[in-house]
Amino acid sequence: MKKVAIVGAGQSRYGEFPDKGIKELFFEAYKDMTASVDKGIDSKMIEASYIGNLGSGGFQLGNMSALVSEYCGLPHIHTMRIENACASGGYALVAAIMDVLSGTHKVAIAGGVEKMTDVSGSKQKYWLGVSGDTEYERLAGTTFSGLYALIAQRHMHEFGTKREHLSMVAVKNHKNGAQNPKAQFQREITLEQALKGPIVAAPLNLFDCCSTTDGASAVLVCDADIAKQFTDTPIYVGGFGTASDYLAIHDRVSTVTLEGTRRASERAYKMAGLTPKDIQLAEVHDCFTIAELLAYEDLGFCEKGKAGPFIEEGHTQIGGDKPVNASGGLKSKGHPIGSTGTGQAYEMFNQLRGTVEKPTRQVKNAEIGLVHNVGGSGGTVSVTIMRR
Amino acid sequence: MKKVAIVGAGQSRYGEFPDKGIKELFFEAYKDMTASVDKGIDSKMIEASYIGNLGSGGFQLGNMSALVSEYCGLPHIHTMRIENACASGGYALVAAIMDVLSGTHKVAIAGGVEKMTDVSGSKQKYWLGVSGDTEYERLAGTTFSGLYALIAQRHMHEFGTKREHLSMVAVKNHKNGAQNPKAQFQREITLEQALKGPIVAAPLNLFDCCSTTDGASAVLVCDADIAKQFTDTPIYVGGFGTASDYLAIHDRVSTVTLEGTRRASERAYKMAGLTPKDIQLAEVHDCFTIAELLAYEDLGFCEKGKAGPFIEEGHTQIGGDKPVNASGGLKSKGHPIGSTGTGQAYEMFNQLRGTVEKPTRQVKNAEIGLVHNVGGSGGTVSVTIMRR
Repeated sequence: MKKVAIVGAGQSRYGEFPDKGIKELFFEAYKDMTASVDKGIDSKMIEASYIGNLGSGGFQLGNMSALVSEYCGLPHIHTMRIENACASGGYALVAAIMDVLSGTHKVAIAGGVEKMTDVSGSKQKYWLGVSGDTEYERLAGTTFSGLYALIAQRHMHEFGTKREHLSMVAVKNHKNGAQNPKAQFQREITLEQALKGPIVAAPLNLFDCCSTTDGASAVLVCDADIAKQFTDTPIYVGGFGTASDYLAIHDRVSTVTLEGTRRASERAYKMAGLTPKDIQLAEVHDCFTIAELLAYEDLGFCEKGKAGPFIEEGHTQIGGDKPVNASGGLKSKGHPIGSTGTGQAYEMFNQLRGTVEKPTRQVKNAEIGLVHNVGGSGGTVSVTIMRR
Repeated sequence: MKKVAIVGAGQSRYGEFPDKGIKELFFEAYKDMTASVDKGIDSKMIEASYIGNLGSGGFQLGNMSALVSEYCGLPHIHTMRIENACASGGYALVAAIMDVLSGTHKVAIAGGVEKMTDVSGSKQKYWLGVSGDTEYERLAGTTFSGLYALIAQRHMHEFGTKREHLSMVAVKNHKNGAQNPKAQFQREITLEQALKGPIVAAPLNLFDCCSTTDGASAVLVCDADIAKQFTDTPIYVGGFGTASDYLAIHDRVSTVTLEGTRRASERAYKMAGLTPKDIQLAEVHDCFTIAELLAYEDLGFCEKGKAGPFIEEGHTQIGGDKPVNASGGLKSKGHPIGSTGTGQAYEMFNQLRGTVEKPTRQVKNAEIGLVHNVGGSGGTVSVTIMRR
């Protein structure tokens, strides 16, 4: 459609920062975003902000989008906190796109921030457990690793997916993340290490699970008509789609399909006039290794049940025909919940413009990419297609 | 602009309901909303939901908009939780309007829900205190009644506003709420009673403060082009505006002006091509009696500093020239945080259509009304103008 453009993107370092709160973290992303605008931006032009956030560490729960915007010197704008669990950032991006499409504002920030590492263990379990169906899942004793473990068990049972296939996701994403100076874990792991991590929820071990992370990200969304004021190389929104699903896994038609991903991507492809084959690279929601395998299938990159062979054949490596999570993904780059969706957009912005910091991590000559953000165990999903 | 219409509206009873959670409360509002659509609505036409919510009682903090939508039989739609403290519902309404304006969806729900009464006292203080500037206000010991008390003190000091003026707001709103079968407190109070309530934070006493409330509300927003499919008497969105402000009162230029209200209403008037004089009735955010007086001034209904005489002269009574909070307002109807904004829209929908349940509470022949929702002590504000 090319009616909405992205003209800047920024991200804080992802990691553990005991000396930084949500204001400082978001400001780091905001500064990085404004610095990325080739021809500069006067902050007076920024009329709106949409901030994804789940819990702010239980610290600043109300009005936090106004607070972080104020801290960036934007005290009187239109601002909203969007919360859709781990998909909060992806939906913040969609909300900013809709705002610009509606003609209400010309220039808006889509961003996200999360401060997770200050939260104590028991509180963390609580905050992370609140995104499934509380009455039927959390209070029955499930955890998120437990829910994704159920999905993994069933996928292995139905399709013969191997333990090694899960670990291949971790190895690939750590390899990419090792080249990303903003990633939480900048080190490679071997397949042997990945296979032998301590069990978290069988079959998922430590190396199948993403971490808790502090971080923030922001992208500058504007009306495509004025994009060239900011840069000669804007990235355009090709299409977007969202879909929710039953929160509780037991309510769903299938345990091994995220219906939200299937429907959200179908809507995004339709709006963009594209098919899965047209997508040259993607950032997908790999909160657990099994989640990346599901994404391959539900986004239509391979047939249902064939994600194991798909990763094994190397398609999704940098250098393969459909690189996935060149940033390191949630697994290695980190998963600061509210920031994850717009962090993916930050990566895609740079990949499509050819401005990734390290050439070893740059996917060459890509024109069309997709970002995919999942809330909870699939209760909410957003997909946005970005193109040169 | 008349491009967006409201064709249905529903509200649960507001009050204390130990046997109902957020799903049951929201479903009550949803059923009431669908029943209000004159020509009926097939739920398959509903493509999106925007749900305002602050805390869900600390119970279902993530993905709650997907959960309550699923419970209404809408498992795969576009859905977002919007959180802007006590203005969450008002912003959910604005988000739904922008969605329809953007052309993304034709029919969307704007709603809100809050479950407050299950939460214990200390937790309540925490949940309610999280909407100011945590670092500089809550951790310094302020409460929300304390913040509004500071504003009231200063207003009395600068403008000679009397203790009686505050109480007149409470008396008027209880009089209206006594005629509202969905209000939390359906009883009148006398000026003498209102003056002699036990002190909460001087000068504010018990009758100056709204209550904690369980409740939900929902309005059906659609493209004006298809509104007549649903009803012969749609209500149109005339304009809307939002604005944030510094969260901490000490950061603001003035203690006695909500800059958010001033800017948000200015934007809404401009979009609607109207002035404050054109507004025939309003639902304003009277979380404390002083807040209603500020609203008179900052919405432009009277001059700055003249709100005391303005209420004393009876303008804002039902039967006056500018009735305010004919529903009973937050003070008497109740303030289930996330629901308040769309609950105001529910009231205005019925007022403008002449379908208020009791004729004694019906404002006669009104064509243009305004709803005004404030988050925190003014950190976020939304204003929407509705018209026949």
